[in-house]
Amino acid sequence: MKVYLDNNATTKIYPEVAEKIKEIMINSYGNPSSLHQLGLEAQDIVEESSERIAKNFNVNPFEIYYTSGATESINWALKGSAYSGKKTGKHIVTSSIEHSAVISCMKSLERQGYEIDYINAGKNGIIDLNEFEKKLRKDTVLVSVMSANNETGMKQPVEKISEMVREISEYAVFHVDAVQSAGKEMLDLKSFDMASFSAHKFHGPKGSGILYKKEGIRTIPLIEGGSQQRGLRGGTYNVHGIAGTAEALDMAVKNICKYEEIKKMRNYIMEELEKYGLLIITEKENSVPNTVCAVLRKRRADTVVNALSDEGIYISRSSACSSRSESGSRVLKAMGYTEDEAMGMMRISLSDMTTADEVEYFLIKLKNILSFLKF
Amino acid sequence: MKVYLDNNATTKIYPEVAEKIKEIMINSYGNPSSLHQLGLEAQDIVEESSERIAKNFNVNPFEIYYTSGATESINWALKGSAYSGKKTGKHIVTSSIEHSAVISCMKSLERQGYEIDYINAGKNGIIDLNEFEKKLRKDTVLVSVMSANNETGMKQPVEKISEMVREISEYAVFHVDAVQSAGKEMLDLKSFDMASFSAHKFHGPKGSGILYKKEGIRTIPLIEGGSQQRGLRGGTYNVHGIAGTAEALDMAVKNICKYEEIKKMRNYIMEELEKYGLLIITEKENSVPNTVCAVLRKRRADTVVNALSDEGIYISRSSACSSRSESGSRVLKAMGYTEDEAMGMMRISLSDMTTADEVEYFLIKLKNILSFLKF
Repeated sequence: MKVYLDNNATTKIYPEVAEKIKEIMINSYGNPSSLHQLGLEAQDIVEESSERIAKNFNVNPFEIYYTSGATESINWALKGSAYSGKKTGKHIVTSSIEHSAVISCMKSLERQGYEIDYINAGKNGIIDLNEFEKKLRKDTVLVSVMSANNETGMKQPVEKISEMVREISEYAVFHVDAVQSAGKEMLDLKSFDMASFSAHKFHGPKGSGILYKKEGIRTIPLIEGGSQQRGLRGGTYNVHGIAGTAEALDMAVKNICKYEEIKKMRNYIMEELEKYGLLIITEKENSVPNTVCAVLRKRRADTVVNALSDEGIYISRSSACSSRSESGSRVLKAMGYTEDEAMGMMRISLSDMTTADEVEYFLIKLKNILSFLKF
Repeated sequence: MKVYLDNNATTKIYPEVAEKIKEIMINSYGNPSSLHQLGLEAQDIVEESSERIAKNFNVNPFEIYYTSGATESINWALKGSAYSGKKTGKHIVTSSIEHSAVISCMKSLERQGYEIDYINAGKNGIIDLNEFEKKLRKDTVLVSVMSANNETGMKQPVEKISEMVREISEYAVFHVDAVQSAGKEMLDLKSFDMASFSAHKFHGPKGSGILYKKEGIRTIPLIEGGSQQRGLRGGTYNVHGIAGTAEALDMAVKNICKYEEIKKMRNYIMEELEKYGLLIITEKENSVPNTVCAVLRKRRADTVVNALSDEGIYISRSSACSSRSESGSRVLKAMGYTEDEAMGMMRISLSDMTTADEVEYFLIKLKNILSFLKF
């Protein structure tokens, strides 16, 4: 039995999406920029995809841009907003629990003379709104916050932050890293200026991302070339990836209803892990319904992650993008946990494909491993 | 009958590659950055792909980087080299017949204070080496030239330019846009510092590109995030896209032998078009073997391209990336042709899948259309 519980790192593609991708690769291989019939057919696929994606996010199709994944979307959103706003100001606000894509871009902007305020999160994993309000300024040009944290699953008050940004700075672009929310809860992007997504986090293909950019929001391109994407992102459209993204999002949004059941399983895991002596970081409320972040007391998580992997059960010790780091979770440390606690962090992340049997199997095997490791 | 003769815009994917991509999407969906078994399996696929790609280009696997396509590769190569070299100098040399991805990046660098020299090409489509040598300076930090032009198919003297660059500037990074050569002729990248590729130009998937960067050549990342790709390109690996790229390149390189036959068909098309009264731009020698660039005298090419499209025959009037432009081919104008001639440009581009029957069908239909349009 194989049990995949690392869905915040990446998800298994819906078989229907894989089939559709293959069909488009083979039959609709035209370049959407070509003027002949085969090009126009490919262009139709891209346009229809934009309509479907926009509908799921309650925005306009021409506000949807295609990228190679959330990391590119984030780089474009942050650097594009910062560079195009630099005559107004160079002040940026973000949080210290953002994904490494956001943190890396912020460090890069810092080296280029931007002033960045990083807002901390409390032990509950939620960023401090009072501190946030204090740091926002009239000359703030960019604010970036994630909708839900990838390691803890804790949701961030992005709607309230959006209101604050509107009140305090008229120039600031508000970007939301919504990677961990898409397909887990309904999203209305209208309150945000920009939002980033990766298709492979909602059972779509890897290498395909979305940047939502509200009409009129300023930016400059990150990847320049031909006139594709209204002149803002060059490069031949990844037609099959775009169609696969739209198809996966449609299916994932339809499956959001399943997360009531998934949340029950998730809560059950939390209760069991607590019995096993783990410290539970994720709270049942204000979290995406699929994630459990827990800390092994006085033990490194990698031993347990590896032992589970040998049993065909796949969980993670932090975010995949920083899993090869030798130190403990940066996110937990930013929340005030110790290095030892951060080294003991385990993340279990379910999806709409997770079954009750898989959860039982995982819990039994984990219990065995923990009791074995005691000796 | 459908006849696809627009292979310089994009190619039909090899069915085996589409099958492999689907298989990997479904079965090897782990994130290569994850530490568990499913992550390691995905990582193995990426590493094996790098070995295959490197072998085809006679370089090392750790010199291969993955991008979303040649446009990203080019943006990264040019901006990364320019930015990381700016303390040494801000002088760049390129040609005026480069692809719009290169030209757009150069315009952007120009706005940022870099000094760019654009070398012209003669009416034969080959850039002027004497002019090139005159423009190269000790403080040149970047040189970028395409291996073969996408509109004319004319090969550029990149080996000689490489030697010139080595002799004159010790700091200059030499980047080759090799998009139109891969899979059409054997390539040894060792003489270059960087080279860019798109998989969909050699029967691989769209949305997948390669940047070759020789060990030790300086750069900075364009897309920052996790520690993927030796810290130089963030974002979850597009595992199926990478594997599809490696598979397609292997197959395309094996099929290079077929281009002897393709070249004969291409030459036959050139001879027939000349009989029909067209001006042939592409020369039989010093060109990639699949491309014919020809000019309709005193007639706009789009009428003919559209009429052929109605017959199920797909060719192009210029590069796909600028096909929606209302003016004539920029490349032809840079070679000294008039606006009228540039508006009359047609590009026919074959592939290893093109058959003699298809070529005959195209020629018959074109002849009909041309005689019809005369009245």
